[in-house]
Amino acid sequence: MSDLLRPSSASSTAQSAAELLEALRTAAPLTHCITNAVVTGFTANVLLAVGAAPAMVDIVGEAGMFAGAASGLLVNLGTPTPEQRAASLEAVDAATLAGTPWVLDPVAIGVLPVRTSLAGELADRRPTAIRGNASEILALAGMSTGGRGVDATDGTEAALDAARHLARRHGSIVAVSGAVDLLTDGERVLRLSNGDALLTRVTGGGCALGAVMAAFLGTAGATGTGALDAVAGASLVYTIAAEDAAASASGPGSFAVALLDALAAVEPAEVIARAHVEEGAR
Amino acid sequence: MSDLLRPSSASSTAQSAAELLEALRTAAPLTHCITNAVVTGFTANVLLAVGAAPAMVDIVGEAGMFAGAASGLLVNLGTPTPEQRAASLEAVDAATLAGTPWVLDPVAIGVLPVRTSLAGELADRRPTAIRGNASEILALAGMSTGGRGVDATDGTEAALDAARHLARRHGSIVAVSGAVDLLTDGERVLRLSNGDALLTRVTGGGCALGAVMAAFLGTAGATGTGALDAVAGASLVYTIAAEDAAASASGPGSFAVALLDALAAVEPAEVIARAHVEEGAR
Amino acid sequence: MSDLLRPSSASSTAQSAAELLEALRTAAPLTHCITNAVVTGFTANVLLAVGAAPAMVDIVGEAGMFAGAASGLLVNLGTPTPEQRAASLEAVDAATLAGTPWVLDPVAIGVLPVRTSLAGELADRRPTAIRGNASEILALAGMSTGGRGVDATDGTEAALDAARHLARRHGSIVAVSGAVDLLTDGERVLRLSNGDALLTRVTGGGCALGAVMAAFLGTAGATGTGALDAVAGASLVYTIAAEDAAASASGPGSFAVALLDALAAVEPAEVIARAHVEEGAR
Repeated sequence: MSDLLRPSSASSTAQSAAELLEALRTAAPLTHCITNAVVTGFTANVLLAVGAAPAMVDIVGEAGMFAGAASGLLVNLGTPTPEQRAASLEAVDAATLAGTPWVLDPVAIGVLPVRTSLAGELADRRPTAIRGNASEILALAGMSTGGRGVDATDGTEAALDAARHLARRHGSIVAVSGAVDLLTDGERVLRLSNGDALLTRVTGGGCALGAVMAAFLGTAGATGTGALDAVAGASLVYTIAAEDAAASASGPGSFAVALLDALAAVEPAEVIARAHVEEGAR
Repeated sequence: MSDLLRPSSASSTAQSAAELLEALRTAAPLTHCITNAVVTGFTANVLLAVGAAPAMVDIVGEAGMFAGAASGLLVNLGTPTPEQRAASLEAVDAATLAGTPWVLDPVAIGVLPVRTSLAGELADRRPTAIRGNASEILALAGMSTGGRGVDATDGTEAALDAARHLARRHGSIVAVSGAVDLLTDGERVLRLSNGDALLTRVTGGGCALGAVMAAFLGTAGATGTGALDAVAGASLVYTIAAEDAAASASGPGSFAVALLDALAAVEPAEVIARAHVEEGAR
Repeated sequence: MSDLLRPSSASSTAQSAAELLEALRTAAPLTHCITNAVVTGFTANVLLAVGAAPAMVDIVGEAGMFAGAASGLLVNLGTPTPEQRAASLEAVDAATLAGTPWVLDPVAIGVLPVRTSLAGELADRRPTAIRGNASEILALAGMSTGGRGVDATDGTEAALDAARHLARRHGSIVAVSGAVDLLTDGERVLRLSNGDALLTRVTGGGCALGAVMAAFLGTAGATGTGALDAVAGASLVYTIAAEDAAASASGPGSFAVALLDALAAVEPAEVIARAHVEEGAR
């Protein structure tokens, strides 16, 4: 792979992130989450901390109506009950009709049949963004049978081709989470290297990022930011806050608490100053 | 509105709050919660911290039996799955039969049809108390179509007439949460102004208060306290603890942790000394 | 009861605990939890903190497949929806077939009919371990109708005969949680007296321990540790971490946070030095 570094584009990504953060805190975008039972409280608290307005509407008969009115939508497949599965499809169809940007997080797909099948149905509905670890992205692209549960068993670079393929096939931004986050729209490739390993020691560390992406995408229309930069902006704000949290934490418990404090406190200027973004195309 | 201030009555409300807090810590009232998936853990921790015994029994075939034996019941409509909807009706009917006081929290009603319809059915069963933000109270009274999701989009004073109307129609105490909490039994009106804005940055900040109200109502029989003073007592203890938490917090994450610590630590004498209660009738 | 103290055996239990902790942190055993909605996030965080890999797979069509591949399984009956009840049976049957060790936590059984009946069905499938408070163990043994909700209303010694009976009937290790934890395989009886009362002020304080037991049982095969020592090891590590957490906590909120930090930090050597284990047979 012969990467051509484009620092000026990378710095414009950091600039966009800062602008989006400021716009988000003014707009408090209504962020609709259909997410798993393990992380629902933490996800709502992450959204509130960063400045968005979370709403977890995951029943049939309400999810569609709500998705049509929301600024952004997250569909996370961590614990997909029958009710949530039906509500997800209802929500995504309404989001599509209304133009609400939406994020698919295909948690632990690959071997587990119910969520794997649902993830395929949802991906065919062309998510604005898809977020997962390398195993999940490989599985969604049909290039692997997935990892063991919700862990990443592959490095993010191993999922680059799968991410590009998915991005082109579904017209989505694909974000592969790992020590280096890899983002692509099928053409451009961004590598973000902020963050801290403690994010992997807190349940919902990745899932909540999917919700922040939905909130940033829900703000991007107003600022004229493209979807790739919006997804990158969510990642940068989240992982820079994670660095602040790690600096004051004594372990995974105090880290999760400090992450919420840091998300509320992080300033746009810090995002610009501290973002580690590299753009490489081949 | 020409309010006649009655400070002596207000100070008796604070006195009742302190007595109830002490009685609650002795009795550890079994507080039955049918609540939403986002806040269930936080709600249980709030109840444990203040001294109550939480139990989240929300399945058909058990909810009724449990409500009949519990000291108080909360029904919160935040994420009303079909199972929870059926269990709510079962629990409320058993609570009514057994004389168990119960609280209705009509989260995000107005536009969303499933919960709005259920809230109407439940309100007709005459809750001991109804707790919501101004938008929800207006919607339940049929005076508005509700706000955007779970946010308060109206000040509490805007819901005064709706609250009085609901209180009379259903024989309930109605508590409108906001910067100033407004409580009424349809005749008397209390305004409580303790608390901190950080309560709005933590998911479940309002929902957990509904559970504390159920616990206080479940203790009020033993102390001979009226329902309005019991609901006010819950609000005062909770919001005074929130002030303590805010004083030591660095953001929404550390605030939520400190709120639990403060609820366990707050002394009855502090409640009397610091309560901001105003009673106004017209 | 004439107890014969066997300190050498007790010290070997502490030694095993330390070895298992070290092995667990290397293996990161995939720990499958079907648990209640109140504690699911906290339970996952406890497992991550101690070094295990949690996965909450609780839907029909996936739970069985996952249990067959996991290192250990927890089935906790705190909020048993119809979907979870069916998934529990599916998971347990697959675990049995695959030889995956599994833990049953019969939360609040006794009076509540749905979970009591399910607990009986599950116990007949011979759990590797059963964890509960004294009321729950008495109820499962058919020697009581259970307590009020999820509280222990009996001391652990009151459940010794019930625990022994259950252990023999189902071929299980039975762990009775309380101020002194009582563990038996039907013959040997261990009494563990580490821990702190703050564990009873945090929701999931007991439930999460059941998950840690599943993780330790899932590691025990590799180290050749017996099931009784594995269950005791989980209890010792958890309750010693709780002592560390209590030492720095200002109340139940900060205690829960500190418990996660302490679980990540506790060293095998500390477990050996600080374990309070007494073995008594009659």
